[in-house]
Amino acid sequence: MIPRYSRKEMTDIWEPESRFQIWFEIEAHAMDALAELGVVPAEAAKAVWERGGFDIDRIDEIEREVKHDVIAFLTSLQEHVGDEARFVHQGMTSSDVLDTCLNVQLVRAADILIADIEKLLVVIRRRAEEHKYTPTIGRSHGIHAEPTTFGLKLAQAYAEFDRNLARMKLARAEVATCAISGAVGTFANIDPRVEEHVARKMGLTPEPVSTQVIPRDRHAMYFATMGVIASSVERLAVEIRHLQRTEVLEAEEYFSPGQKGSSAMPHKRNPILTENLTGLARLVRGYAVPAMENVALWHERDISHSSVERMIGPDATVTLDFALVRLTGVMDKLLIYPERMRRNMDRMGGLIHSQRVLLALTQAGVSREDSYRLVQRNAMKVWESDGAESLLELLKADPDVTSALSAEEIESRFDLDYHMKHVDTTFDRVFG
Amino acid sequence: MIPRYSRKEMTDIWEPESRFQIWFEIEAHAMDALAELGVVPAEAAKAVWERGGFDIDRIDEIEREVKHDVIAFLTSLQEHVGDEARFVHQGMTSSDVLDTCLNVQLVRAADILIADIEKLLVVIRRRAEEHKYTPTIGRSHGIHAEPTTFGLKLAQAYAEFDRNLARMKLARAEVATCAISGAVGTFANIDPRVEEHVARKMGLTPEPVSTQVIPRDRHAMYFATMGVIASSVERLAVEIRHLQRTEVLEAEEYFSPGQKGSSAMPHKRNPILTENLTGLARLVRGYAVPAMENVALWHERDISHSSVERMIGPDATVTLDFALVRLTGVMDKLLIYPERMRRNMDRMGGLIHSQRVLLALTQAGVSREDSYRLVQRNAMKVWESDGAESLLELLKADPDVTSALSAEEIESRFDLDYHMKHVDTTFDRVFG
Amino acid sequence: MIPRYSRKEMTDIWEPESRFQIWFEIEAHAMDALAELGVVPAEAAKAVWERGGFDIDRIDEIEREVKHDVIAFLTSLQEHVGDEARFVHQGMTSSDVLDTCLNVQLVRAADILIADIEKLLVVIRRRAEEHKYTPTIGRSHGIHAEPTTFGLKLAQAYAEFDRNLARMKLARAEVATCAISGAVGTFANIDPRVEEHVARKMGLTPEPVSTQVIPRDRHAMYFATMGVIASSVERLAVEIRHLQRTEVLEAEEYFSPGQKGSSAMPHKRNPILTENLTGLARLVRGYAVPAMENVALWHERDISHSSVERMIGPDATVTLDFALVRLTGVMDKLLIYPERMRRNMDRMGGLIHSQRVLLALTQAGVSREDSYRLVQRNAMKVWESDGAESLLELLKADPDVTSALSAEEIESRFDLDYHMKHVDTTFDRVFG
Amino acid sequence: MIPRYSRKEMTDIWEPESRFQIWFEIEAHAMDALAELGVVPAEAAKAVWERGGFDIDRIDEIEREVKHDVIAFLTSLQEHVGDEARFVHQGMTSSDVLDTCLNVQLVRAADILIADIEKLLVVIRRRAEEHKYTPTIGRSHGIHAEPTTFGLKLAQAYAEFDRNLARMKLARAEVATCAISGAVGTFANIDPRVEEHVARKMGLTPEPVSTQVIPRDRHAMYFATMGVIASSVERLAVEIRHLQRTEVLEAEEYFSPGQKGSSAMPHKRNPILTENLTGLARLVRGYAVPAMENVALWHERDISHSSVERMIGPDATVTLDFALVRLTGVMDKLLIYPERMRRNMDRMGGLIHSQRVLLALTQAGVSREDSYRLVQRNAMKVWESDGAESLLELLKADPDVTSALSAEEIESRFDLDYHMKHVDTTFDRVFG
Repeated sequence: MIPRYSRKEMTDIWEPESRFQIWFEIEAHAMDALAELGVVPAEAAKAVWERGGFDIDRIDEIEREVKHDVIAFLTSLQEHVGDEARFVHQGMTSSDVLDTCLNVQLVRAADILIADIEKLLVVIRRRAEEHKYTPTIGRSHGIHAEPTTFGLKLAQAYAEFDRNLARMKLARAEVATCAISGAVGTFANIDPRVEEHVARKMGLTPEPVSTQVIPRDRHAMYFATMGVIASSVERLAVEIRHLQRTEVLEAEEYFSPGQKGSSAMPHKRNPILTENLTGLARLVRGYAVPAMENVALWHERDISHSSVERMIGPDATVTLDFALVRLTGVMDKLLIYPERMRRNMDRMGGLIHSQRVLLALTQAGVSREDSYRLVQRNAMKVWESDGAESLLELLKADPDVTSALSAEEIESRFDLDYHMKHVDTTFDRVFG
Repeated sequence: MIPRYSRKEMTDIWEPESRFQIWFEIEAHAMDALAELGVVPAEAAKAVWERGGFDIDRIDEIEREVKHDVIAFLTSLQEHVGDEARFVHQGMTSSDVLDTCLNVQLVRAADILIADIEKLLVVIRRRAEEHKYTPTIGRSHGIHAEPTTFGLKLAQAYAEFDRNLARMKLARAEVATCAISGAVGTFANIDPRVEEHVARKMGLTPEPVSTQVIPRDRHAMYFATMGVIASSVERLAVEIRHLQRTEVLEAEEYFSPGQKGSSAMPHKRNPILTENLTGLARLVRGYAVPAMENVALWHERDISHSSVERMIGPDATVTLDFALVRLTGVMDKLLIYPERMRRNMDRMGGLIHSQRVLLALTQAGVSREDSYRLVQRNAMKVWESDGAESLLELLKADPDVTSALSAEEIESRFDLDYHMKHVDTTFDRVFG
Repeated sequence: MIPRYSRKEMTDIWEPESRFQIWFEIEAHAMDALAELGVVPAEAAKAVWERGGFDIDRIDEIEREVKHDVIAFLTSLQEHVGDEARFVHQGMTSSDVLDTCLNVQLVRAADILIADIEKLLVVIRRRAEEHKYTPTIGRSHGIHAEPTTFGLKLAQAYAEFDRNLARMKLARAEVATCAISGAVGTFANIDPRVEEHVARKMGLTPEPVSTQVIPRDRHAMYFATMGVIASSVERLAVEIRHLQRTEVLEAEEYFSPGQKGSSAMPHKRNPILTENLTGLARLVRGYAVPAMENVALWHERDISHSSVERMIGPDATVTLDFALVRLTGVMDKLLIYPERMRRNMDRMGGLIHSQRVLLALTQAGVSREDSYRLVQRNAMKVWESDGAESLLELLKADPDVTSALSAEEIESRFDLDYHMKHVDTTFDRVFG
Repeated sequence: MIPRYSRKEMTDIWEPESRFQIWFEIEAHAMDALAELGVVPAEAAKAVWERGGFDIDRIDEIEREVKHDVIAFLTSLQEHVGDEARFVHQGMTSSDVLDTCLNVQLVRAADILIADIEKLLVVIRRRAEEHKYTPTIGRSHGIHAEPTTFGLKLAQAYAEFDRNLARMKLARAEVATCAISGAVGTFANIDPRVEEHVARKMGLTPEPVSTQVIPRDRHAMYFATMGVIASSVERLAVEIRHLQRTEVLEAEEYFSPGQKGSSAMPHKRNPILTENLTGLARLVRGYAVPAMENVALWHERDISHSSVERMIGPDATVTLDFALVRLTGVMDKLLIYPERMRRNMDRMGGLIHSQRVLLALTQAGVSREDSYRLVQRNAMKVWESDGAESLLELLKADPDVTSALSAEEIESRFDLDYHMKHVDTTFDRVFG
């Protein structure tokens, strides 16, 4: 997490102020429940809410001595609340606060990421509908295959991010749990009703079994999900990078007035945003494995997960948030060149229609093997001429072909509209 | 995937026979739909089902020439079916077969993994109920913390694998899709109703937008989920390894008559199965990142994902299946030593009750800070005596403590049952 | 490791026969040293060499009972050698055999990989020299930048694999160690001179401190190095995939007669070998992290590394070997199209010379900022015309430019040879 | 990289001030070489050194407009230097500055890491010599095996970090290169002698072939090496965590006066530093794969590596530096309890001597199989008695044993010194 790739909305979640504020709320809500149960005086609970507060510098100072952040926080809280603070944290253990807080933070981060994906979907949908019928060449292996539409490309991206939306909601649910269960999770010194109360107030559900800590398979799933979403970001980014290559140039990232593509070459307009997204995806993916390694804590808990989460908690959520917002901006302003798409499609001498001729030959009674061979031998001539030859003309001049198909029959297979006839079907499936 | 860590049930899914059989079914079902639509003769569809078949050696032979496995398969099929076979695969592309087949295989693998987890849950539950109230020390940081029960340890494992069961079902749904959409997914040469028919017959749903391939974010999620589940396997395995250490020895893997722990040291009984599971978890986790890297295919598809999936498809599912079954066996026959658990718990001179005394002092009006200091100074003496000193006796001899609490009040905090009172609560939550 | 991506030379190393043969040699050499030291009878050592042998089926049978592979092997050996075999393995522990054997296998695998890289270097060098002065456009961000030569591209690949050669040699040295040090590495029951003898005979050096096992940081480095080399394979593969794209088509994988690019589209010639290499690279990279996770074994050893190595030992070496040999084949037969390179370079209306004009303006006294602005405003017109406009003509028509530079001065900057003048320098650096 | 796990010495390298200062030096040295070659006026080079400078806020401001950091820097530099600055950066491209700067930073980071390892080695050696002959039980699989010494444990750690020292030096050499080669690395607009001069001045060597960028296989190797070193940190950390477990307690992290182990349990002394190191190792390992994914840049370069390096450059070096220094502190002050080691070793009723009896039986003519069985049947009784039975007494009472060995012969195998006899050998190998 560095400022360059961060948005304030997300980094705010990870600021010390936010963390201590959540700690305060957890402790104060727990006090309410403890008071309700008659374990602590009602006035003490009231005092915490009324006079409660904390001082970050003071916490840092105390932590340097006691080497324990929750104890430092509680001491600072006591300095604000006074004597009644001695009831705070009663029967709780540090992890009750730390783990519940982390989950609150991850849930809030998930809410932002969910909103990010929703915004991205709106933009992709708009561009998809704009270009629903814009013909463009479909490519497999980087090689021209058959026509498709630019709208279909974007419909695929939409469907993929729609799945990511569902996944992120599941990831949010994974971590939306609360634990106030004491030193080894037995509720020995704290009533389970305290956990239920705090959970409800913090928008969480009680963790069925915690063992001082909330089990880390939940967090592993959360970070792994982000790794998958980042990979989808990469997929769309790579698509745009390909489309912007000099030789293709079917689409381009918006290039603002005043922008410079290269310090040395004034002619350059580079797809730097999507290249950047490609790198950011690598980072977010890289956090998945450490999160999985965090699962196998020793016995009821060890603290090895903590340093990992202090880093990747912010790193993964901030980076993915930034990437999603950047991608949304790229898609929103993407320059799309239908003219050029058409020109590229036409440059291979009609090769893209080879399958249809193959099928026509098969249907006319030629064996599949022979049909393939007949089309391939003509196609290869076109390929080797780099599109100077025309597949249609060559086929019409090949007696083995014309003995099965008339010139009209061959020509009828070189028809672009033929490929568009199910665009609606797919759009209905995706946007339906 | 090596025989040593494989079960036939799972490896069968990945055998060439299974793959070609699924290809055959996809092609044959597609023929039915094509016949129904009037695209191919009904007799051709019938001929495929009746005379259809394949010969693996022959396929290999043809593939060596054409370097394309689906074409090789179709040629072999044609050799069985005869002339009508020329209608097979009409309007389809290889990936229609390959990707739908892969998803059938992954769905079948998921079914086995789901059944594995269900069996593991049955075993864990049985052992948890056996030891619901067996006291054992809870440990944080590897250090004795406070008492818990062995049943609670296992209830946590149950809850974790119950989550994994839900995750694996979601992972199954991720990949339970079918694509029969042609060269770039436009249905140019094949009616979408063919896809719907094949999907229904193969137990899948149609992929909303495929682009020659089914999008790989689905598979990434599938493999990432297995990485998380493997990490849970590791967690339980590590727990058992710890419990079996010479100094702890609270549980032990079953050691069969005739087994040898070491070629050199006849006294050894080593937790080799759970150590093995720890290693297997590393492997399964390691397949998650390559699966994520597979997402960003170029344009409508490139084939870079294929080699990855040919390896990790079998490797991940076979290894995780083996690990889950092995873990189930370990848990089923685990030797559990309640006596030793009790002895270990008692060996630290009552330190495990320190928190309760702290709370009692606080409730008696001593500040939290002072309470902590008073208990800690006595606890450290016990710690340094390695349990030879008794915390109870030291506290009763400390005038700063006794000025706040009577001897009876102190003694009442050294009570094991106190820690058991919410075992039922947790069991209700988990086993409901 | 699957047959599809395997070469026999490498898989042979990992066959049971090879493993047991190495075990036999280790035990037999150890017997020689023990006899020399007078610990065992000389005849026993002689008997082992003379009558020694093993039977794989028998070993499997025994292992099923004793669940310990080395004990099973020793029993089979005893069945061949007879009574004298009781001296075999004396003072040794299983890992002495297993770990030394693994290192022998990894060293042999490294030797093949080193030879692979050497062969690849020969091929790259030949192609580099063929195309030393073949002009081609250099691209940054996928966008035309300035001219370079195809030879320079390959010189970079050469330099990169030359570094990989050095790294692989270092990786080989990392694992070229032997341990015959007993149950916890103290030589309690075996003289260190036995280790020295076996090491020498097996082409290894003694491990300075083993602790039953050879430390796994060595293996982690070995597998991490393969991950880096695989990434270089990917780099060159991706380069070729780009060059073969329909719109670029500056180079192409060799396409054999009879080969079919697509079952549906007879016109296709796809870069499937380099796409495959891209996937194989993901696999080999994926094995690096499990190898690193293997380092932190518990105390003197635990066996969690074993399952990982049984899988990734063959998987990583076989896959990387296959990839290197495949890449060598691709480079050897790569179709290279200098004509097309020239045509692509020329299609952007001379934009690739923008920097030289910028520099000329600066040298003529125009500020850098102004120079940049002047060139950029003309370059953008060419860019937007997709190369229909000529940068040279536009510049000659821009009075702000011509007030600083004469037409001749501008024209002199549009010179291809200018970019070739240091090709020799770089070739000297790389090929010396 | 977060302040909690950072040391200023390392973070300073990554501050904007450091980066811009290195940029400045690269540009200024390049000017010297250009002046020497007569390409720019000598006074301009002099002016840069004399009046050169930069203003970070101003650079940020300019970058917001031009979206290019090097151009922003050059503009700020020009504002300090004045008109002569127009010669700066002549013939260079941004990456010449950026990549050379990154390598300078990585080299400086490597120098700190090398010094860290050297300091760690000094401490480990001191503790190893202190405890050279301190007997302790060697454990395989977490189970008591045979005696070793605490010094030998540390000698192994020393040897491992000595290898890491060599690896880090190699990693430093990997990235100690400089590129000043222009837009696509052809030296079209800049003489190679400029690169040679800058390299020499910055303590680097010229990159043999750069292509706008320095090839990223170098950086991949650098980060992969750090992943291996971090794994060694984890190994030693895990050893200490095990030794500090309540039931073992053979060593302990230093616990400072005033420190609190738990907010709830005043008795706790937890190995939190080594647990923390375990987590930090996961992080550093996690950066290796993104670094490897950075290798396959498109053509002469794309910028996807940049975001990755902006994050993991600081993250990996700062975290590993912090971890090494923390580990050094832990080892320096580690509390080591030889008494307890002895007590633990003795608690298993002499089982640890089982191998020696096995060997004695073999040497007395009993077959290996029978010897194993005889010792195992007695050992299992001791095992099941949890050390209450004595292996020595049981053996002496077993007629099958005593028919081969006399009581004295058996007793002589229960001798601790026997295991120490080669400690010197190993220390000589390691510490020379």
